[in-house]
Amino acid sequence: MDVLEAIASRHSYRGAFRPVKVPREHLRQIVEAALQAPSASNSQTTSYVIVDDPDVLARLAQIVPGSLALGTAPAVLVVLVDRPDPQSEAPDFTAVNYGASVENAMLALTGLGYAALWMEGWKRAPGAVVAVAELVGAPEGMVPTVLVPLGIPEQPVTPREKRPFEERAWWNRYSA
Amino acid sequence: MDVLEAIASRHSYRGAFRPVKVPREHLRQIVEAALQAPSASNSQTTSYVIVDDPDVLARLAQIVPGSLALGTAPAVLVVLVDRPDPQSEAPDFTAVNYGASVENAMLALTGLGYAALWMEGWKRAPGAVVAVAELVGAPEGMVPTVLVPLGIPEQPVTPREKRPFEERAWWNRYSA
Repeated sequence: MDVLEAIASRHSYRGAFRPVKVPREHLRQIVEAALQAPSASNSQTTSYVIVDDPDVLARLAQIVPGSLALGTAPAVLVVLVDRPDPQSEAPDFTAVNYGASVENAMLALTGLGYAALWMEGWKRAPGAVVAVAELVGAPEGMVPTVLVPLGIPEQPVTPREKRPFEERAWWNRYSA
Repeated sequence: MDVLEAIASRHSYRGAFRPVKVPREHLRQIVEAALQAPSASNSQTTSYVIVDDPDVLARLAQIVPGSLALGTAPAVLVVLVDRPDPQSEAPDFTAVNYGASVENAMLALTGLGYAALWMEGWKRAPGAVVAVAELVGAPEGMVPTVLVPLGIPEQPVTPREKRPFEERAWWNRYSA
């Protein structure tokens, strides 16, 4: 799929997935794409646990209940980020880095014909981050940050409305 | 260009650009791609001033000296982000959002045959952020965050080495 088409057709999919496995070859391509994203000073602060074991998927859905996408997905990317060094005075680019990396994954999986959901809100549930970290065996220095359930969508979906170019982009100088 | 190929061939280009204008049609396609990126709760916190006026480009290069890419680029994207509400207790996804948005721009411009540099470090220079904000007329609620000089590269470049899949991705459970 052309890169501009992938960008235009990527969307957040909140519905159910078909009970069809995602081949590991595809999962690897998706995560390889994610790992190719740029990062500040090439710091590569984003890592992935690729969950496709039905037992681990079921436990993940128990820790983070209430999502049709997560509850039915045949695969979930658990995005880990390096815990920033509290001693460091350098700016922390962890969030920017994983933003670019997860977007690469979203575009790659769109190109391969899958849909997915970029989940952030689950972290607010008390204990959820620690439970997911334990489930995937995250080491001390890494923290789970995003969950990306993916698969073949049951329903068609349409991208969400965005404000138009004229309201978010200007030539040479901002104008209200 | 295929999406996976665009992801694999995107790179940070620090060299000089050829003195060839980037057509506005292409600049618009690149920024349209950037604006299609996902954002937390569809908050769309990332905006763009597209600089291609030689006078504005020259002033930008004066404010941020020492970059061959910025000093020779026929176009620069000035990425603005909404200033987070200090009253809000919700998590701030501004950095994640612009990470995804700028990556979309990088992939779109790669697909169109251009190279670019994702510049963050310029913000550390005293007064630089305020000067760029004034130059592009950024309103009170938006702050310049990334500069993306782009164009046709003078030299060929190769992507930076990344740590391999085996060191950054695992199946179902992290293992050292």
